Amino acid sequence: MITLEECRKCDQSDSLASKKALFNLPEGVIYLDGNSLGAQPKSVVPRMQTVLSQEWATGLVKSWNDANWVTLPLTVGQKIAPLIGAVPESVIATDSTSLNVFKCVAAACALNKGRRKILSEPGNFPTDLYMLDGLEAFMQGDLEVVIKPREELLDAIDEETACVLLTHVHYISAEMWDMKAMTAAAHEKGALMVWDLSHSTGAVPLSLDDCEVDFALGCGYKYLNGGPGAPAFAYINKRHLGSVKQPLSGWFSHKRPFDFVDDFEGAPDIRVMQVGTPVVSAMALLDEALSLWEDVDLKTLREKSLDLTDLFSRLMDDQLTGYGFTAVTPRNRSTRGSHITYRHPDGYAIIQALIDRGVIGDFRAPDHLRFGVTPLYVGYEDIYQAVMILKDIMSTQSYKQDKYTVKNAVT
Amino acid sequence: MITLEECRKCDQSDSLASKKALFNLPEGVIYLDGNSLGAQPKSVVPRMQTVLSQEWATGLVKSWNDANWVTLPLTVGQKIAPLIGAVPESVIATDSTSLNVFKCVAAACALNKGRRKILSEPGNFPTDLYMLDGLEAFMQGDLEVVIKPREELLDAIDEETACVLLTHVHYISAEMWDMKAMTAAAHEKGALMVWDLSHSTGAVPLSLDDCEVDFALGCGYKYLNGGPGAPAFAYINKRHLGSVKQPLSGWFSHKRPFDFVDDFEGAPDIRVMQVGTPVVSAMALLDEALSLWEDVDLKTLREKSLDLTDLFSRLMDDQLTGYGFTAVTPRNRSTRGSHITYRHPDGYAIIQALIDRGVIGDFRAPDHLRFGVTPLYVGYEDIYQAVMILKDIMSTQSYKQDKYTVKNAVT
Repeated sequence: MITLEECRKCDQSDSLASKKALFNLPEGVIYLDGNSLGAQPKSVVPRMQTVLSQEWATGLVKSWNDANWVTLPLTVGQKIAPLIGAVPESVIATDSTSLNVFKCVAAACALNKGRRKILSEPGNFPTDLYMLDGLEAFMQGDLEVVIKPREELLDAIDEETACVLLTHVHYISAEMWDMKAMTAAAHEKGALMVWDLSHSTGAVPLSLDDCEVDFALGCGYKYLNGGPGAPAFAYINKRHLGSVKQPLSGWFSHKRPFDFVDDFEGAPDIRVMQVGTPVVSAMALLDEALSLWEDVDLKTLREKSLDLTDLFSRLMDDQLTGYGFTAVTPRNRSTRGSHITYRHPDGYAIIQALIDRGVIGDFRAPDHLRFGVTPLYVGYEDIYQAVMILKDIMSTQSYKQDKYTVKNAVT
Repeated sequence: MITLEECRKCDQSDSLASKKALFNLPEGVIYLDGNSLGAQPKSVVPRMQTVLSQEWATGLVKSWNDANWVTLPLTVGQKIAPLIGAVPESVIATDSTSLNVFKCVAAACALNKGRRKILSEPGNFPTDLYMLDGLEAFMQGDLEVVIKPREELLDAIDEETACVLLTHVHYISAEMWDMKAMTAAAHEKGALMVWDLSHSTGAVPLSLDDCEVDFALGCGYKYLNGGPGAPAFAYINKRHLGSVKQPLSGWFSHKRPFDFVDDFEGAPDIRVMQVGTPVVSAMALLDEALSLWEDVDLKTLREKSLDLTDLFSRLMDDQLTGYGFTAVTPRNRSTRGSHITYRHPDGYAIIQALIDRGVIGDFRAPDHLRFGVTPLYVGYEDIYQAVMILKDIMSTQSYKQDKYTVKNAVT
């Protein structure tokens, strides 16, 4: 049986423990939902004050140049690049994850003209599938979306496959693809590979350039702590830069947006993935949040993440066997991301009861309880206390109250 | 000759004059660029503090429900609705103007299936044309963009025209279309009408429902003062709500986004124009900025706007005849918006010299000087002083300095 003392010892020797002080976290809360919305880095508050008072109120329209608003998407992209194993010029912060799915897949199809199939898997994060739906319906037969379960995916890649879209770490199970092997398998059949990194970036070391990934995209508001609805990012492998076209060609994807000419000429660089005017306020929050990562060693982060989910798993075995929980997340360290998920028939009510006790995880239909570990602000004792509170809720059946069973719009 | 005293008298009897105190404006600046980036309403500063400290830092992921983040795009849309003459349920704040052009035009084409032409005019705001370019290229022959000069547009609408996309107030000339007549002309030929309201909303009273407009979109960071890169908005006429499909179908356009099902089912309401997760921070700024409009009478605003541009025009005649300026904006009050534009061969340098003297207008290639009047925070004396400073710059030729002639990336 793992003890509180053992967990406290782990916290004492944790080289990332000091990072927690850089976040604004409410008293008495154990936050295990940074995989949905990252906590707030303290430094974003003064940064936003600067944006509002100096840049917008005082600098006004001049701040597009003077405060470098116009290049902020590139600056942010350059800060994300080392977290995903990319050269700085291949990443840009722009729009939402959903829109970047569309742009990346459409760009891959355009590069791989003559092939008409887009391959993905059922149970992928819904917006990935929805964006493919929209693309397919709109193309009226010119493109076809093929959905195959994980075990049939490799065989389904054929000479008609333009690209494969997969989410690297699954949003429910946390199961993680072997990026290098899967990308190579797609390439072997002449297909391009598009990775959704929403549940990987800032949680798992990535090496996109080394894996020869073609396109990727990811989320700014989960492990990157950019704030609610933060801009997402897009990646184009440097070998494709200059030849990419994507259909959402707005003035910020133009080579010279401020020439105001009628004819579109796409930027020969990563700016081609932008569309309209960047959302400066949200972009500044993400930019500031990324400064936290400057001295973080991603291998250390990954080890701590795995140790924390291992700890969660072992504590569940120690304390909650017989309470009806079924583990969903792989135990193998090399095939999972940074959250851990269980099924339970009363999952929704249990999560609500946990939240009421200050342990914030989330629920995903139909019966998944999801707990994210964010090594920058979650420690070993946090995991211990969270599981002990869960045990208390289960042993007292305190989750069986009306206030926990009525569903809200969002969890 | 108009005198300073006359202008001061106008300010004294201006019922909107008190609104200026609600904005954070720098000392010594006459801001005539609110048509590019609106000035900052004072109330956005405490609102952002609430978003950062209470909603994000303390409420964390629970704020999607508890702070109504998830419905903020609808709330903001409902505040924009009365400014554009629309029922509240037909407007939503989402994404950028560019993306909303794509969604509205694609949705119009889908509703008007069997017709393949999209009509617009040369010199429309570039991003409108660029988004059409992208749509056309991507559809590989299924749709065709037809660009006709203003005088040939009416005749160009035919039985193949799926929709017409026009910008209501031109971004350079300020020339304003007769929305009702143009929409009726499109409808007469069975085409749908899409209006870009970027330079109209918050400057010109609009009556979209009354004009039976099909789709519209507009900008949040110009006359609505939502901050740099603020979310844009989209409008669907209530008669189309429920039958609209647009290709950028993300999880926030789904009927039940939080069911996390694989199959897309579009929201039967205005939410169908959303794509991904809304940018909460920027959405909150726009929401707050819109509270300024609650007691603004749009007819009064429009009269002041026209009086200010008339005053600018008459002062230019009084003071700057012979200095090489050519008026671009129509003098007819019913056919222009809320900015006024002149051509001058040294336009770029003159604008830089004006900015250096605290008069902020902007330059649009190749030789346009553009001055926006925003009746909520620009007064009559402001216009007088701006023109007198321009006269001083011209008469002393002080714009002919190197520091004013080297171009920046953005103006």
